[in-house]
Amino acid sequence: MTETGKLFDRVCLIGLGLIGSSIGAAIHKLKLADHVTGYAASQQTRQSAARIGFVDSVHETAADAAKDADLVILCAPIGVMEAITLEIAPALKPGCILTDVGSVKKAVISAVAPHTPDHVHFIPGHPIAGSEKSGPESGYPELFVDRWCILTPLPDADQDAVKKLENFWKALGSSVEVMTPSHHDSVLAITSHLPHLIAYSIVSTASDLEDVTSSEVIKFSAGGFRDFTRIAASDPTMWRDVFLTNKDAVLEMLGRFSEDLSALQRSIRWGDGDALYDLFSRSKETRQQIIEAGQDTAAPDFGREHHTDRLTDKHNEDK
Amino acid sequence: MTETGKLFDRVCLIGLGLIGSSIGAAIHKLKLADHVTGYAASQQTRQSAARIGFVDSVHETAADAAKDADLVILCAPIGVMEAITLEIAPALKPGCILTDVGSVKKAVISAVAPHTPDHVHFIPGHPIAGSEKSGPESGYPELFVDRWCILTPLPDADQDAVKKLENFWKALGSSVEVMTPSHHDSVLAITSHLPHLIAYSIVSTASDLEDVTSSEVIKFSAGGFRDFTRIAASDPTMWRDVFLTNKDAVLEMLGRFSEDLSALQRSIRWGDGDALYDLFSRSKETRQQIIEAGQDTAAPDFGREHHTDRLTDKHNEDK
Repeated sequence: MTETGKLFDRVCLIGLGLIGSSIGAAIHKLKLADHVTGYAASQQTRQSAARIGFVDSVHETAADAAKDADLVILCAPIGVMEAITLEIAPALKPGCILTDVGSVKKAVISAVAPHTPDHVHFIPGHPIAGSEKSGPESGYPELFVDRWCILTPLPDADQDAVKKLENFWKALGSSVEVMTPSHHDSVLAITSHLPHLIAYSIVSTASDLEDVTSSEVIKFSAGGFRDFTRIAASDPTMWRDVFLTNKDAVLEMLGRFSEDLSALQRSIRWGDGDALYDLFSRSKETRQQIIEAGQDTAAPDFGREHHTDRLTDKHNEDK
Repeated sequence: MTETGKLFDRVCLIGLGLIGSSIGAAIHKLKLADHVTGYAASQQTRQSAARIGFVDSVHETAADAAKDADLVILCAPIGVMEAITLEIAPALKPGCILTDVGSVKKAVISAVAPHTPDHVHFIPGHPIAGSEKSGPESGYPELFVDRWCILTPLPDADQDAVKKLENFWKALGSSVEVMTPSHHDSVLAITSHLPHLIAYSIVSTASDLEDVTSSEVIKFSAGGFRDFTRIAASDPTMWRDVFLTNKDAVLEMLGRFSEDLSALQRSIRWGDGDALYDLFSRSKETRQQIIEAGQDTAAPDFGREHHTDRLTDKHNEDK
C-alpha cells in the first residue's frame, strides 16, 4: 500500500460485503478520499457498516449514495448490477468513474454499459482477492496488497480515467493488468470459477455417501478434503451469479477438466504408475512457480499452525 | 502431546521422510523410547537424518535398523513395503510390534501380513496428518497433535499390543480410531485420495490450455487455483502408490463425483440458479462442522496472512 495522498473527493461503495468494506477501510487508512459513502441492500449490513465505520456516511438508497461521487464502485452481486445501474444513472455526476469488482466481466458490461450515461466513464474491474469469509465484518484494508487487479476497459474508454483507476488500485497495494473482457472471463474460469465449482461438487459428493458417514468425513478431513471445504464456504449468492453469467467459459473449462480426469481415471484403472508419477511430478513445478510469483506462501499449510521450528531450523539454532 | 514417560526401549523407523522424521522428533521430545534407529533407501536421506539427529542411529540396511526393536514403524511408500517386510522379518524380535503409516490399509495388509513372523504383532495404522512438504527436513514433532490416527488391527490381533500402539499415538497428540481396513480405504478415498486426484487433474488441465497462458494461471491463482496446487505438490511416489493400491475405492468415489459434477454442469447449462444456490449454501455448513471438530482453523486463509486486525476487532479495540 502506498501513501499517494488524495485521489478522489468522494467515493461511493454500492455493496458493503467483504470487498466493499475492505476498500472502504483501505481508503480511510490511506486517506485516498475526503468522504466515502456507502449503500447496501440489507438494513443489517448498512447498520454494521455505520457501526464499524469504514464508510463516512451510509445511505438508504443507492442513488443517494452515488450522488456527487467522483468514483462509484459496484461491490454487489453481479445479478443486481443492472438494477443498481438503472437506479443510480440519473444521480451520477459528469466525469464520474463508474467501476465494479465483479468476477465476470462480459456479463457486467452487458448489465451496466447500456445504462451508463455518456458523461460517465464506465471501466469494468476485478480485484483477484478474497476470502471464504463474507460480510462487512470480514473486511480488512490489506486485502488487496500483493494481489492483481484486472481492468477490462471498453475500446472507447477515456485513457485518463483508466489511468486514474489504475492508480487507485495500485495505491491499495495491487498490481494492475489490462485485458479484454472475454479473455478475463476465460482466465478466471480456469483460475477461480472451475476450482470453486469442483470444490462445491466434491463437498456435495461427500455429504451423500452411504458407507462413509458425514461425521467421518468431518473427522478425517485433514487428509485433503478440508482444503476444498475452505473455498466451498464462499458466498453462495456471489457464486451462483458467477456460474449463471460466465456459463460458456466455465462449461468449456469443465469439459477439458472432465476429459483430463477421465484420462487419469483410465491410468488408475489400468495401473499405469508411470503416467501417474509423471503427472504428479509436473504439478509440483506449478506450485513452485506460484510461490515464486508471490501468490502464495511456501509455509507448509497442511498442519495449519505455520510452525517455524522445522527440524533443520532447530538444528541450525543448536549449532 | 502428553508426557507419558518411556513406552518402548527401542523404536525403529523404516523410511525417514516427513512422517518418519516427525515421529522420531516427537519420540525424542517426549522421551518415549531409549533409542530410535532409522533406515532410508536413499543415502542422502540417511545422511540428512544423521545430521538433523531425529534418530539416534542410522543403519545401512532395514534389517539392521529393525534388529532388537520393540516397535518397528514402516514409513516408506506402500510400493516397497512387501520387500522391506521380507528383508526385516528374520531380524524381528519376538513380541515386537510392527506397524506402518501407509495411506491405504488393505494393500499394506496384503503386502506385509503374509511375511510377518508369528511372534510379531502386526497392527496396520495410518496417521491422518501431513503436509505438502516431503523429506526428512520437513518434519516437526507436533505434526500429529490434534489429528486422528486410524488403526486397522486384524481380527486375531493381540489386544495388549493394540492398546500399546494406541497409547503411543495418543502420546504423540493424536486421537485414535479403530476400524476395518476396508472401511478405512473407503473413508480415505473420499476425504483424501479423491481430493488429491482432482487437484492433480485440474493443475494438469490448467497447464495445457491454449488461450490462457501458464504465466496467467500462475499470476491470477489467488482466485482459488492456488489452493489446489498446494495439495497437488505432495510427494509423487507416495501418491502414485496410493492410487495403484486403493484403486477400487478411488474409482468408486470418482464415479460418484463425476455424476455429481455432471448434475452441476447441467444446472449451469440450464441456468438453474436455485439449484446452484442450494448446493453452495449446504457446503458452508460442512465447512462449519470441520472447524467445530478442530480439523481446521476458522482464520480466513485466502489472504494467507492470518490477519488478526479484522475490522470488527479493530472497532472493539477503539472503544
